[in-house]
Amino acid sequence: MDRVPVLKIGDILLVSIQVDMEDQLALQLQDDLAERIVETGCHGVIIDITALDIVDSFVGRTLSSIAAISKVLDADTVVVGMRPAVAITLVELGLSLQGISTALNVERGMELLARSRDEEELLPPDEADDEVTASS
Amino acid sequence: MDRVPVLKIGDILLVSIQVDMEDQLALQLQDDLAERIVETGCHGVIIDITALDIVDSFVGRTLSSIAAISKVLDADTVVVGMRPAVAITLVELGLSLQGISTALNVERGMELLARSRDEEELLPPDEADDEVTASS
Repeated sequence: MDRVPVLKIGDILLVSIQVDMEDQLALQLQDDLAERIVETGCHGVIIDITALDIVDSFVGRTLSSIAAISKVLDADTVVVGMRPAVAITLVELGLSLQGISTALNVERGMELLARSRDEEELLPPDEADDEVTASS
Repeated sequence: MDRVPVLKIGDILLVSIQVDMEDQLALQLQDDLAERIVETGCHGVIIDITALDIVDSFVGRTLSSIAAISKVLDADTVVVGMRPAVAITLVELGLSLQGISTALNVERGMELLARSRDEEELLPPDEADDEVTASS
């Protein structure tokens, strides 16, 4: 397989990772996702890792960099479907998924994204401006 | 990989097929889907085949049998994301996807399922009863 499909559902892009992440595939996924975010104007990315038995440091870094890229393009990233064993291994290995929110499943991920979106929109205009200035 | 993830989104189960369908994987997917339909009471199944370069007769049969099983469990199946080349090959090979609806992408598949569901619900009770009797 040459690329992981990116599915658009409403305001969200959904990616289900089912194969081992190799360098080329990971880079391709980053490119595809960035392009689709710009093209669709989606505000959320959900990455499903139900099928992954192992999340090693490379996969962890890939997920973090996807989240960072999405953030710059004004989209939040949520990783869903992590297996209990994967969570345990992550902690045992001391790996942290920097900048990544997690949720139990796709539906909860969607709720999380909708909630965080609502909160941003509820921010008073002044404060929102300050935030933009501060981070630029 | 031992199984294809089945994701629940609202009233719909979403399956994204990204790897070559082998006997064991296809059977496992049928089992998983049937179980999830019963467990969740979902009324629709969307199978995304964006990642498939080829749909041969085995994959065609698998999709048809998934659609048939879902139908008995009161769920409709829509196949989405078929590549142009796959559609051409299907026709050239004379393969028909029996009992399967198709849609261009996940969102249109969801609309299709919602529409067909609405139509069923709009059926007057008498007629609906007749239909059940006729098909049993």
